[in-house]
Amino acid sequence: MSLIVQKYGGSSVADAESIKRVAKRIVETRKAGNEVVVAVSAMGDTTDELLDLAHEVAPIPAPREMDMLLSAGERISMALLALAIESLGHDARSFTGSQAGMITDAKHGSARIVDVTPVRLREALDEGAIVIVAGFQGFNRDTRDITTLGRGGSDTTAVALAAALDADICEIYTDVDGIFTADPRVVPKASKIDRITSEEMLELAANGAKVLYIRAVEYARRHGVTLHVRSSFNNNEGTIVYNPSETVDAATLVARARATSNTNTKTGSESAVEEPLIAGVATDLSEAKITVVGVPDIPGKAAQIFTLVAKTGANIDMIVQNVSAASTGRTDISFTLPKSEGQTVLTALRADQAEVGFLGLQYDDQIGKLALVGAGMRTNAGVSAKLFTALFEAGINIEMISTSEIRISVVTRADTINDALRVVHTAFGLDADDVAVVHGGTGR
Amino acid sequence: MSLIVQKYGGSSVADAESIKRVAKRIVETRKAGNEVVVAVSAMGDTTDELLDLAHEVAPIPAPREMDMLLSAGERISMALLALAIESLGHDARSFTGSQAGMITDAKHGSARIVDVTPVRLREALDEGAIVIVAGFQGFNRDTRDITTLGRGGSDTTAVALAAALDADICEIYTDVDGIFTADPRVVPKASKIDRITSEEMLELAANGAKVLYIRAVEYARRHGVTLHVRSSFNNNEGTIVYNPSETVDAATLVARARATSNTNTKTGSESAVEEPLIAGVATDLSEAKITVVGVPDIPGKAAQIFTLVAKTGANIDMIVQNVSAASTGRTDISFTLPKSEGQTVLTALRADQAEVGFLGLQYDDQIGKLALVGAGMRTNAGVSAKLFTALFEAGINIEMISTSEIRISVVTRADTINDALRVVHTAFGLDADDVAVVHGGTGR
Repeated sequence: MSLIVQKYGGSSVADAESIKRVAKRIVETRKAGNEVVVAVSAMGDTTDELLDLAHEVAPIPAPREMDMLLSAGERISMALLALAIESLGHDARSFTGSQAGMITDAKHGSARIVDVTPVRLREALDEGAIVIVAGFQGFNRDTRDITTLGRGGSDTTAVALAAALDADICEIYTDVDGIFTADPRVVPKASKIDRITSEEMLELAANGAKVLYIRAVEYARRHGVTLHVRSSFNNNEGTIVYNPSETVDAATLVARARATSNTNTKTGSESAVEEPLIAGVATDLSEAKITVVGVPDIPGKAAQIFTLVAKTGANIDMIVQNVSAASTGRTDISFTLPKSEGQTVLTALRADQAEVGFLGLQYDDQIGKLALVGAGMRTNAGVSAKLFTALFEAGINIEMISTSEIRISVVTRADTINDALRVVHTAFGLDADDVAVVHGGTGR
Repeated sequence: MSLIVQKYGGSSVADAESIKRVAKRIVETRKAGNEVVVAVSAMGDTTDELLDLAHEVAPIPAPREMDMLLSAGERISMALLALAIESLGHDARSFTGSQAGMITDAKHGSARIVDVTPVRLREALDEGAIVIVAGFQGFNRDTRDITTLGRGGSDTTAVALAAALDADICEIYTDVDGIFTADPRVVPKASKIDRITSEEMLELAANGAKVLYIRAVEYARRHGVTLHVRSSFNNNEGTIVYNPSETVDAATLVARARATSNTNTKTGSESAVEEPLIAGVATDLSEAKITVVGVPDIPGKAAQIFTLVAKTGANIDMIVQNVSAASTGRTDISFTLPKSEGQTVLTALRADQAEVGFLGLQYDDQIGKLALVGAGMRTNAGVSAKLFTALFEAGINIEMISTSEIRISVVTRADTINDALRVVHTAFGLDADDVAVVHGGTGR
């Protein structure tokens, strides 16, 4: 008997009808002879409505009480889902984060999982029940308080449960057919990725692919959990995110995933050893660029600047230092960071301008980032050449470049980013023959 | 320092504005030097909305999951209330039923409290925090599941907390000024009762007074908790429900209650030893009457009938056996019970008609019940005479009569019950000089 963990986002359980549809799918999985554990998000806009209420009664809501408030959303959706399953004649039991043994640190609003002790879930499974767990929430042992995991928390809940219960697969249900080579809303010919390593997925997620949250992918990679990202609107096979270091080979993983899919996908398209060089292209418009102008070109200045930045807690991404102009003895240092953190970092830098000795600061929030992700990127010089040529031919200017083992990122003007995505997607032969179908809405 | 428990119903926390108003009142109580513990219901119509959703996904919702679902409502209101208090600069912490140590049996939907272990509440109070507790919900130790207490659950939560924390007073906030001598919507000249014993209150609640739930009054009586039923819309003194067996005298209780009220009520109106003979009049339209016609007038027949009724779990109230007609050797037995239980009991009786040997059954759901409550009712023969005369003069027919130590109940036609209430209220001199102000809405 396989153990399957399924995650359903807010758009999959937005109303009574959707909940009944999801209940049916869960029951089908159970009927196929699997044990089933489900992590579920709050219904549709519940979380936003609760946030609005909180801001109406308190301009700066206290974190402990915010978590108490927001965790009510999943309690509602999970109980309704359990009720719907029971009315189909199957035993179902819902569990809050604390009942499910989702132990976290005490950082309200963005708690990290420190332990998962799913004793009650295992008991319920042994008794033949379908288990429903509230996504997004946990419990701190020291304060005995309820916590929430922050953005993408329900994905993380599902992956953590899959790891703790040693599940055969963790299915992430969403409103698209899987992970695509690019955002299908921008590139209609984007093609679905059949399988991708967790490392590549990590780069795609970190660079703006919205289907899976980076944190869940990290957790899956660290604990060897195989993910199957698929649509809750059909039975098609989605995208397998696997850990290449696993002893199980890719063909087995695909077969495992396929066991719960219908089989009308192309046969013969899998060849377990053939990894596509380019996995996909992601874009991100949420970042800004800060340039520290006229930094004295003497050792230790970069360290001084980034120590100041680190103190603000900002997540910086790409860093580029220009070649020093010999005549001035000064250089410029640019870096990207989330727009939301821009003003804090500018303030921190300005406060110590005299001490560091730079001449000025520039802030630019009209940038776009494009990342090309795939295996063996650096060892294949042709990849960057092809990328830069495609952008040049489309008249798109590159402002910053950064590379890693499996990724090349470039920064362009924000208003050229969609053009950049399309030309790069085409240049690397990722265009599909047919056009992808996209449903609306996003969950948490 | 006094410890005050306050209960706010759903209509007092119906929206963000109401929550802010209640938060202000709580902070004022804290500022006056009291420790404060608050039990709160779900916001306005939340519970009904959740019930509707449950019935949409499951025609017969499973009890465990229903409790999981419904308990989310209080989680939302209590977190919002805590947020609102914190934004007024006071430390506030909310606790679920299980965090508050509200231990119940496992009867989902109508769980009974078996123990209250408010360790975390005491800790939070010692740290100077205002404590907010989810009303209506508890936790079963054996199943480790969340339970709900059923109708009036939040009143019971407040009283149970007051008992466990040895509170000085338990304030029940509502949308009327206190307990009235009759329903002010029917009798505009009903007057507010200043103080009433818990026994009399129990009779009023059991006979249809809706402001306090009978279960909460029972709990208060058994544990010696003094209640103060008052309006959340003003600072007037409400009604003190006290236990006459307490060593503290009524004057002290009133002074205690007054400490948190403004003092613009009539001075000199209290005389601790003077108990009004009649506390109030209550009416109830929720019952029906079953008459078992032609019961053989031989010993054991009544026992046989009421054993059958007891097996259905029905709560029967008044029982009247007519005098046997000597010619037939048969008699009629009538009793009242909640309308909701009528069909079940009729079915049970019909099944054993041959064995019991009665001739037929009559069902009448157009009855009204009026109860006159007060101390020393039976020892004062004039009370029943005055009651029957008042009804006779108003042309109202009495169909059944039943009496207890502190109550006389009569059954009339349903459509005459409001007239009956008014004439009885006047006959016993309960009419006030001015007209009571009534706000809309009811909580849970």
